Amino acid sequence: MTIKISIDCMGGDHGPSVTIPAAISFSRQMPDVELILVGLEDVIRAELKKHGADTLPRITIQHASEQVAMDDPLEVALRRKKDSSMRVAIEQVKDGKAQAAVSAGNTGALMAVSRYVLKTMAGVDRPAICSILPNEKGGPTYMLDLGANVDCEPHHLHQFAIMGSVLVHAMEGIDKPTIGLLNVGTEDIKGNELVKATAKLLQADKERGALNYYGNVEGTDIFKGTVDLVVCDGFVGNVTLKAMEGLGHFMKTVITTEFKRNFLTMLGAVIAGGALKAMKNKFNPSRYNGAGLLGLRGLVFKSHGGADAYAFEWALRRAYEAAKNDVQAQVATMIAELMPRGAEPTQEQA
Amino acid sequence: MTIKISIDCMGGDHGPSVTIPAAISFSRQMPDVELILVGLEDVIRAELKKHGADTLPRITIQHASEQVAMDDPLEVALRRKKDSSMRVAIEQVKDGKAQAAVSAGNTGALMAVSRYVLKTMAGVDRPAICSILPNEKGGPTYMLDLGANVDCEPHHLHQFAIMGSVLVHAMEGIDKPTIGLLNVGTEDIKGNELVKATAKLLQADKERGALNYYGNVEGTDIFKGTVDLVVCDGFVGNVTLKAMEGLGHFMKTVITTEFKRNFLTMLGAVIAGGALKAMKNKFNPSRYNGAGLLGLRGLVFKSHGGADAYAFEWALRRAYEAAKNDVQAQVATMIAELMPRGAEPTQEQA
Repeated sequence: MTIKISIDCMGGDHGPSVTIPAAISFSRQMPDVELILVGLEDVIRAELKKHGADTLPRITIQHASEQVAMDDPLEVALRRKKDSSMRVAIEQVKDGKAQAAVSAGNTGALMAVSRYVLKTMAGVDRPAICSILPNEKGGPTYMLDLGANVDCEPHHLHQFAIMGSVLVHAMEGIDKPTIGLLNVGTEDIKGNELVKATAKLLQADKERGALNYYGNVEGTDIFKGTVDLVVCDGFVGNVTLKAMEGLGHFMKTVITTEFKRNFLTMLGAVIAGGALKAMKNKFNPSRYNGAGLLGLRGLVFKSHGGADAYAFEWALRRAYEAAKNDVQAQVATMIAELMPRGAEPTQEQA
Repeated sequence: MTIKISIDCMGGDHGPSVTIPAAISFSRQMPDVELILVGLEDVIRAELKKHGADTLPRITIQHASEQVAMDDPLEVALRRKKDSSMRVAIEQVKDGKAQAAVSAGNTGALMAVSRYVLKTMAGVDRPAICSILPNEKGGPTYMLDLGANVDCEPHHLHQFAIMGSVLVHAMEGIDKPTIGLLNVGTEDIKGNELVKATAKLLQADKERGALNYYGNVEGTDIFKGTVDLVVCDGFVGNVTLKAMEGLGHFMKTVITTEFKRNFLTMLGAVIAGGALKAMKNKFNPSRYNGAGLLGLRGLVFKSHGGADAYAFEWALRRAYEAAKNDVQAQVATMIAELMPRGAEPTQEQA
């Protein structure tokens, strides 16, 4: 089966100079992928030509006359730029022309436009953003919400747990993924009002066999790989993710500076090259680029705005895997089973 | 002037085997320090002897018959163990026998016992925990609250900003420290209800010249050193801090594993030894051990429970510097000036 992915080529800090080379490279590796490049046709065509890829099969161009700027207010992205590359890319999913859309544009705009165009899945109050992080066990730790919902009620976190659990199941083939509630301590008495109330909902789901709720986890558990999925509100998730990004950058700066300090340290770095390269690979945030917008009637993946072509390609890969694993249909089916309210699921665009 | 510090020698994961060697080493380095070692006298005396320090001047022992276990409920720490080493150490501050107390015991118990024994400073609703983190500019970033208050109102965060600002001023000699409000984005429209309302209070203080409010900061700014002080609620602060601790541990594991992989990488590590050592120094969380409990009528510092002697010594150093810089009196005076409610400050135990 061919997997079709639409790409917002104009989004992100670098636009086509990043998205097009990534698309070309990805297309060359994946014979079962068809890509729809969305944006200014002339610009896209010129960029393809620049990379000697103007005659690549399985790549088509879908013209869109506008683009959402990184600092555009939601209002503008949503109501004024109706022919933006972001929106047209998402419309490809709505119209069944693509199974997933990928954009490196402004997160708020992407979520708003996705909700507007695709609509929220039946039974879901609020879509959430889910990403993966590396852990000490060698596997990914899934974490959500990472910023879509900064003020949450317990039933929102409960829904995040359900959606995230289904995503992990579909992507990793884990039957009942373990779910941890991010908290300031592991004991039941710990936490703010939000997580204490959420814990009760998750515990009830565990008792009825619906979710594999592990209990509270702490910040350290994200990297220990204690659970498959870490659930938190979007404020906590976003701040935590960015703090880790900041620490990673700081460490990289110090490592680079220290190894370049003098001849001996440089020599050491050259000799230990394999170790440094392996470290770089393990910590490279590029490899974890590509966050899923969950709870919509269609698959949308968000790349980091500052991603380079290598990182953007990882976001494409994430979207591809989600489509190939039929995540959309699985989420819709399982949401219908698991959501306590028992709303009708919508399986269109799956 | 001699600085007197009382030490809860029984607290933490390791008790006297960590606290006593740290105290001995610190005492030998600091001729203007007097230490009061609090705990089981026999145990302390034996540990001192073991390290050939049973006749050290400027060290006295204060017997306390009980100890707060790391998993004791607050109730037990507070009401049942009235002769605990933690409590007696804090009482030394209350009685004017020490200018600061240091404990590696359970954070919740330490805060509860400190509040009970010392009382909260006039004008302060809730004490907070403030620690420092390294940043790319080479200076420390102060951050609070790190876990004392998991459910906050805007006026609590406002008070944290004031207390933290005074601490940075007293410890770093910075006239008007810059204050950042931890948020999911830098724009004014970003954030949850709590931070949006807090931003208004801080902005008003900036306009009347009381605080040097910088605006919103993101997780990445903690390590960039964008501001001197980062303010957040205790839930966000605690989760973020532990996530960073987890990432640091993960990176250390990977670095160690990779460098030990084969002969060449090991050789590289030996040759680049200076670089690795410098990195280790910069990232060593031990050097940032020692969080201040702010807003009490006396100085109390909390060491990480799992601290080794080297790390515990840093907590002692932090307490020493706070006492030497007369932080307590400065906080009391400035709280009186800055707190909008204009309550009477209490300067005792300063």
